Amino acid sequence: MAILSPTVQKLIDELAKLPGVGPKTAQRLAFHILKLAPEDALPLAHALIEVKETVHFCKRCFNLTEQEFCSICLDLARDANLICVVEEPSDIISIERTREYKGLYHVLGGALSPLDGIGPQKLHLAEFFNRVHSEDIHEIIVATNPNMAGEATALFIAEELRAHTESGQLRITRPAAGLPMGGDLEYADEVTLGRALSGRRTI
Amino acid sequence: MAILSPTVQKLIDELAKLPGVGPKTAQRLAFHILKLAPEDALPLAHALIEVKETVHFCKRCFNLTEQEFCSICLDLARDANLICVVEEPSDIISIERTREYKGLYHVLGGALSPLDGIGPQKLHLAEFFNRVHSEDIHEIIVATNPNMAGEATALFIAEELRAHTESGQLRITRPAAGLPMGGDLEYADEVTLGRALSGRRTI
Repeated sequence: MAILSPTVQKLIDELAKLPGVGPKTAQRLAFHILKLAPEDALPLAHALIEVKETVHFCKRCFNLTEQEFCSICLDLARDANLICVVEEPSDIISIERTREYKGLYHVLGGALSPLDGIGPQKLHLAEFFNRVHSEDIHEIIVATNPNMAGEATALFIAEELRAHTESGQLRITRPAAGLPMGGDLEYADEVTLGRALSGRRTI
Repeated sequence: MAILSPTVQKLIDELAKLPGVGPKTAQRLAFHILKLAPEDALPLAHALIEVKETVHFCKRCFNLTEQEFCSICLDLARDANLICVVEEPSDIISIERTREYKGLYHVLGGALSPLDGIGPQKLHLAEFFNRVHSEDIHEIIVATNPNMAGEATALFIAEELRAHTESGQLRITRPAAGLPMGGDLEYADEVTLGRALSGRRTI
């Protein structure tokens, strides 16, 4: 005989599919939800349904939006000559929080990873190269993650752009790699410290 | 201008209300859900709605059930002379997993905690005492948590039962407190070790 009612087991199974949620956490979350009044638990269900019904990709930059184009693409105050290429829509949140960047974005939807079967055709790269050729772009910041896949993707983009645009017309940059602010030299890994040294700046 | 679309922000806010889920985790979960295909994300929403619609308390023991009485109360093979009192329905799962217990349960819905405003009338205690008087109970195992509130609740139950039942008719027990299996004497806290010593058994 099953200990749990099938409905509760179903909820636990669905919660356990979330990243970072194991069977124990899923059970704890499920029993928490069961203890809640319906008016406290149902908004989560409705938010889930609403998000899947209304949120989709921006037609231009593949950011998330409820309209045809995202609020950043529609914002005329932003610098349309500058595109920042990121892997995921969540990266846009991180960059926007710095309040340092006023250009547009392009979301790739991941990074090149041949071992996982993610080649250039699986990312929004064709749409990106189309934008570079059809829009008046002066600079591209390739802000993919500073890891193996992100570096490979940045290199691929830079090589493709250099091969298909006249030199000197387009600046291709990458955010500086180095020691994180508040970090400690002693605890920095050798790759980060090496990058920080080779990318040293005059003070 | 808000960085996130209101629908996404709503989902993040609802996820952040779950226990152990902070704003960062909520954002990560929300972006994971956004990346899922609708057929992978919507079952969670539907499981949430179904659980709130169909699951409620067993009329007798306050375990969770989709029917009038829970599967344990309806199971005629179980020992109806034995009641195990627990704080939450999730405690039943833990006890059932041991396969050591074949009696019935009674879920209190919490433990006495006057500082949090949880007095006897906030728990399913009146229903429990009714069961003890109307059903043919030989033993009651008070398996509330071995912490301040759980111990106080166990003491309250034992005193109430002793005051209102003839002595010798009802055995009131509590699960043994002591060292956990696989534990280490060196790392045991002094309260646990003290309990283990005072509750020592002849081998």
